[in-house]
Amino acid sequence: MIVSIIGLGLIGGSVALKLKKSGFADQVIGVDVNDENAEKAKALGLVDDCLVLPRALAIADLVILAIPVDAIRKLLPSVLSRIDERTTVIDLGSTKAGICETILGHDNRKNFVAAHPIAGTENSGPEAAFDSLFDGKTGIICDAQESQTSSYLLAKACLEAMDMHVVEMDSKSHDLHIAYVSHLSHISSFVLGQTVLEIEKDEASIFNMAGSGFESTVRLAKSSPNMWGPIFKQNKKHISDSLSAYIENLQAFKGMIDGGEEEAMIECMQSANDIRRVLDGINDKSNQTEKENQII
Amino acid sequence: MIVSIIGLGLIGGSVALKLKKSGFADQVIGVDVNDENAEKAKALGLVDDCLVLPRALAIADLVILAIPVDAIRKLLPSVLSRIDERTTVIDLGSTKAGICETILGHDNRKNFVAAHPIAGTENSGPEAAFDSLFDGKTGIICDAQESQTSSYLLAKACLEAMDMHVVEMDSKSHDLHIAYVSHLSHISSFVLGQTVLEIEKDEASIFNMAGSGFESTVRLAKSSPNMWGPIFKQNKKHISDSLSAYIENLQAFKGMIDGGEEEAMIECMQSANDIRRVLDGINDKSNQTEKENQII
Repeated sequence: MIVSIIGLGLIGGSVALKLKKSGFADQVIGVDVNDENAEKAKALGLVDDCLVLPRALAIADLVILAIPVDAIRKLLPSVLSRIDERTTVIDLGSTKAGICETILGHDNRKNFVAAHPIAGTENSGPEAAFDSLFDGKTGIICDAQESQTSSYLLAKACLEAMDMHVVEMDSKSHDLHIAYVSHLSHISSFVLGQTVLEIEKDEASIFNMAGSGFESTVRLAKSSPNMWGPIFKQNKKHISDSLSAYIENLQAFKGMIDGGEEEAMIECMQSANDIRRVLDGINDKSNQTEKENQII
Repeated sequence: MIVSIIGLGLIGGSVALKLKKSGFADQVIGVDVNDENAEKAKALGLVDDCLVLPRALAIADLVILAIPVDAIRKLLPSVLSRIDERTTVIDLGSTKAGICETILGHDNRKNFVAAHPIAGTENSGPEAAFDSLFDGKTGIICDAQESQTSSYLLAKACLEAMDMHVVEMDSKSHDLHIAYVSHLSHISSFVLGQTVLEIEKDEASIFNMAGSGFESTVRLAKSSPNMWGPIFKQNKKHISDSLSAYIENLQAFKGMIDGGEEEAMIECMQSANDIRRVLDGINDKSNQTEKENQII
């Protein structure tokens, strides 16, 4: 199978490595508007070759869009118009409803599968790619009923070849939920980084005192602004709601601190402690997938 | 040397293990108001023996207080009143100015060294203890001029035996800085956990979608409320200021999202990206200490 990957950053590069390594792809073709990225991806061995978009679309059995979500919305309709009827197109964007709307009623809508691998790091670019990025993670497929069976099955097989655990949901629920468990985390981290850096201007010594807790909380502040700006814009309503809830809870907590209400604070933290159950669930899931893979 | 450790949780237990393993302590005595904790600490081999407080103070060359900061403030004056003149007392609390104030003018103030190891995990209790918790981390000593030379040198040697890199500062600067690089991180994480759990009530499926980014940002929400409540209360002014700055920046970011101001968002995230420099600094420091230790 020939797989053409549009966008050779962390995600596209890691998909390329994994699909080649797993044997799912016989040949991986790369496309990137940035010539330097394309050169690097080839030099790093992420892809077998780099081609211009029309040529990459013409020869591919499977086309994967691994570009920012605004670029997906712009490019997807014309990609679907230019493919062969046997070609399947998957996108890997972090928002789904807006992307699915863009191609509502498109003649080749059935060739498209909306996907979102819940995987990433705070690093970006082809140098950041590695083949185990997706191992044991969740791969979401949205609005599966809009895809033809052959395309759906190919997309599912592709995510499974990437060692992902496939979950299905509709694109609107996806965007609501992901606002809370991914987009909000990124904003809390970006803004925490910003706030602490603003103070550092006068107090360079402050960072002698930063430990692993700070590092963990602020890690996502290293993420790519050009990837996240369009996500925040496209999932505006849900992110704004989640941010309102977060800010309101922070203000309430500040009120408890200002009022010296230690018991109320402790009660609030105790309820937050329940997140342990959720995080253990995430890790169990990864371990389970690892085990399943070992059995296979 | 006989070291008595008051408080046998994550911190006290880890200190006990490390001081024994490094050879700094010939004998480690534990004290805990919670009998169950004391039993566990002994069963886990964290301490050689558990004694009642007066006995543990009487035989110790070095007394280490590893209890919540409110308990340190309550206990420290009487501990200092009951020790032998050759005994040194160190506390390991996460706030320093209030603790130092409590014993201002105490006859044995000179026997006390205020310390803060920048190390911890989100877990608590004696079972959470491990001997490498402090390796390569920063150990802060505050208001060193208030301690007699022999006590200061013993405290420094103790932190160095724990493989820590020692930094000195005054207790007021400590409390200001630590509000931003530690206490604020914990609140942002607690409240993020709380906010997402509130939404989960109606939407159990949400956690299928949580990835490693969420996990990293919300990890500290698992921390002990009984340890953090007193810290937030004791460092109230600085934490309240840091929270105000954080909330203000979040509101500004929400304004950009609501207004569709993508360029302003990207600019803001780009400035937050500079946190990479800081985090690389933290890691360089750890690596450097590791190297130094290897050379030794």
